[in-house]
Amino acid sequence: MANDKKMVEAITSMDEDFAQWYTDVVLKAGLIAYTNVKGCMAIKPAGYAIWELIQKQLDERFKATGVENVYMPMLIPESLLEKEKDHVEGFAPEVAWVTYGGLNPLTERMCVRPTSETLFCDFYKNDIQSYRDLPRVYNQWCSVMRWEKETRPFLRSREFLWQEGHTAHATAEEAEARTIQMLNLYADFCEDVLAMPVIRGQKTEKEKFAGAEATYTIEALMHDGKALQSGTSHNFGDGFAKAFGIQFTDKDNKLKYVHQTSWGMTTRLIGAIIMVHGDNSGLVLPPKVAPTQVMIIPIMQKKAGVLEKAAELREKLGAFRVKVDDSDKSPGWKFSEQEMRGIPIRVEIGPKDIEANQAVLVRRDTREKITVSLDEIDTKVGELLETIQKDMFERAKAHRDSHTHAALNWDEFKNIIDNEQGFVKAMWCGETACEEAIKDETGASTRCMPFAQEHLSDVCVHCGKPAKKMVYFGRAY
Amino acid sequence: MANDKKMVEAITSMDEDFAQWYTDVVLKAGLIAYTNVKGCMAIKPAGYAIWELIQKQLDERFKATGVENVYMPMLIPESLLEKEKDHVEGFAPEVAWVTYGGLNPLTERMCVRPTSETLFCDFYKNDIQSYRDLPRVYNQWCSVMRWEKETRPFLRSREFLWQEGHTAHATAEEAEARTIQMLNLYADFCEDVLAMPVIRGQKTEKEKFAGAEATYTIEALMHDGKALQSGTSHNFGDGFAKAFGIQFTDKDNKLKYVHQTSWGMTTRLIGAIIMVHGDNSGLVLPPKVAPTQVMIIPIMQKKAGVLEKAAELREKLGAFRVKVDDSDKSPGWKFSEQEMRGIPIRVEIGPKDIEANQAVLVRRDTREKITVSLDEIDTKVGELLETIQKDMFERAKAHRDSHTHAALNWDEFKNIIDNEQGFVKAMWCGETACEEAIKDETGASTRCMPFAQEHLSDVCVHCGKPAKKMVYFGRAY
Repeated sequence: MANDKKMVEAITSMDEDFAQWYTDVVLKAGLIAYTNVKGCMAIKPAGYAIWELIQKQLDERFKATGVENVYMPMLIPESLLEKEKDHVEGFAPEVAWVTYGGLNPLTERMCVRPTSETLFCDFYKNDIQSYRDLPRVYNQWCSVMRWEKETRPFLRSREFLWQEGHTAHATAEEAEARTIQMLNLYADFCEDVLAMPVIRGQKTEKEKFAGAEATYTIEALMHDGKALQSGTSHNFGDGFAKAFGIQFTDKDNKLKYVHQTSWGMTTRLIGAIIMVHGDNSGLVLPPKVAPTQVMIIPIMQKKAGVLEKAAELREKLGAFRVKVDDSDKSPGWKFSEQEMRGIPIRVEIGPKDIEANQAVLVRRDTREKITVSLDEIDTKVGELLETIQKDMFERAKAHRDSHTHAALNWDEFKNIIDNEQGFVKAMWCGETACEEAIKDETGASTRCMPFAQEHLSDVCVHCGKPAKKMVYFGRAY
Repeated sequence: MANDKKMVEAITSMDEDFAQWYTDVVLKAGLIAYTNVKGCMAIKPAGYAIWELIQKQLDERFKATGVENVYMPMLIPESLLEKEKDHVEGFAPEVAWVTYGGLNPLTERMCVRPTSETLFCDFYKNDIQSYRDLPRVYNQWCSVMRWEKETRPFLRSREFLWQEGHTAHATAEEAEARTIQMLNLYADFCEDVLAMPVIRGQKTEKEKFAGAEATYTIEALMHDGKALQSGTSHNFGDGFAKAFGIQFTDKDNKLKYVHQTSWGMTTRLIGAIIMVHGDNSGLVLPPKVAPTQVMIIPIMQKKAGVLEKAAELREKLGAFRVKVDDSDKSPGWKFSEQEMRGIPIRVEIGPKDIEANQAVLVRRDTREKITVSLDEIDTKVGELLETIQKDMFERAKAHRDSHTHAALNWDEFKNIIDNEQGFVKAMWCGETACEEAIKDETGASTRCMPFAQEHLSDVCVHCGKPAKKMVYFGRAY
């Protein structure tokens, strides 16, 4: 490790400068490096291993619901991108254009996919003929490119990794059911695996995806009180089907348009993990996505038998993702590294411990120290990892709940946004103009109209007209 | 399945038109669809599931040797591509150029990566400082783009999926050892998992990778007697390190250049599986990469108890990748589909079988039928899958060996290439001009200088000058 020194230097305090704290963590925990390709990052082993654990567990959940993986081309001819009017308006301003193939200019330029609705539609048009071909529930894992002006590692970069599911169904009801099913799958994944509570709801007309009839979202609250959109699921109705001519012969022998959905989650989730769980010592990883769950750190490792015992312990803990740090650094240095990297449990083992047939477990999340007998350390570590996973969720939820406030009038709304930060729950008239005025005045956007509606009052918090929906507002990444 | 009819139509015989047979198989086995993005294919579920099994098993083997996965940007600025002279000459004519980001022309154009040596070098330049940072053994799974003129599904397409490993080492010896280690890992993978025998050897100067000091390759023989390069591993020495300035402080406190390697395998392997194992009924998949290993086909499924027994059997065979085809098609139709898709074992179960407490196993590779008791069907299926895997390798090896001939003089050489097809083993003088003349006269290129050298004669098969190496020649994909 060339960067040991930098790693154990103190990072910026999150209370002092949250944005700088974030940057310090992504760099010093070894998650990414900046590159000479502007707006694009290199994801290093410690970062990519988190993504692999996300992929594996999300993909398993997908497949349990009948999803099949496929791969579509990475380039989209301009004429294809233009077929659905709202969609091209949403994406054309922010795509990268390929105009030359080798030494020759292309007769038609192509963009690097910013998302693949148009490619899937072009594919489904030939692939689907009969009701027997439906539903199609396909997904791909790939990278996409959007030519963002301001970028930040994981949160907003010109290229990012994601999965994009694209489905086709015989009826509107079935498409809506799949849209909601995937949103709930995302929410459960965030809560169970990332230990991150989310609000499930629908985006407003203004905030929905380009070309969608309805966009559903899960919204999480970061440690600084800002919201992060963490996954979205779109119901396209038959809009794309009509634009692309995707028809099938139904059981009644009539030609009908399919109903479609799409849904995606991205490497942005790694940014969410950092900002929900991290602290002033660095990353704090939920055990289920920690590439290393247990780091064994030998104390006085030059003493006879210590390294042997550490290796023995690693074997005994083989059911977990476990490593021994037997490098020639000092234990204190190793502790700082393990904390910076967010490894959930540290096992300290030295000559005195060996003599007493024990070891010390140290929780990364609470720093609590627990002395355990070596005879039952595997059971104890297993239980502790489960406890940590559960406690991390509960702490994040308590933080989210204590930073969620109802606003009954406009003064309350502004006061909360300015002084309390976090989510504001408030009634809204349903008008885009009003939504825009709220954002202009406070910087807070509508995050979602939650599925779990509450009746806070009869009137819009901003304009006083009759209220249509309760909405979560917040400043957002 | 909209395409049932097409699927069970006879495909072109491979003896009549091998190229058309190949195209029929990739389409009718549902592996790919053509797209409106010229030269790029859509990989459908049946094709992508094979790739997922390749990825999983290859990645496990990588990690067992210390490989870590990372992700680099997909775009390469032109100035970066140009840093290593041979490399840019090799790739610049066949890359796709991005010239616009959104509405604005780029100040420097960037290509979609055709391979990522330059990006890894740019990364390693900052990432590596000290001998303690070495070795770096990184890999990425991604798609790359090369602007090919003639394309064929899996074998040569403008975009393809692959893995590319890029390593950095303190010494030349270590880099060479890693280059050979990965080539052997590839060879073992092809033989153990894809049941495909390969020749391991070194590429000639003419055929080596742009920028490499040495390229090693594994070469397989397809059913039509043509060779397919199936994986390559390159030793770059310190050439890229000098071009990019990748230096480290060694133990002796001196600044030194690193030594680098790269190695890759691609979706081309799926083409290899098709052309090594396929037959006139379609695909034949080795059990280890068969997304479905066992297809249970109920006979007279409307009779009471048949579907229940089929479902019961699926449970009993739960240790394998097993499905029941309980659609309303006829058994004969289902047999054809299962054969076209290359599923290794078909289980036939009907009322008479149930009465006799038995089922019939049918091997896809040999069509052999084996009646087994339902009590021990799980054991028998497990054994049979192993036998099929082994037999498929042995058959492919026998075919390869019977299509490999030694040529001691030029007449023999031409005769073999024209009449026998397959590999020609022959002595070679080591001159590029001679190698080119051989290719011009016969269409056969040097496939590799095998590690397992034989002394066939003292002189070059073509020019009669003193021989330096025994070489495998062949016409190739």
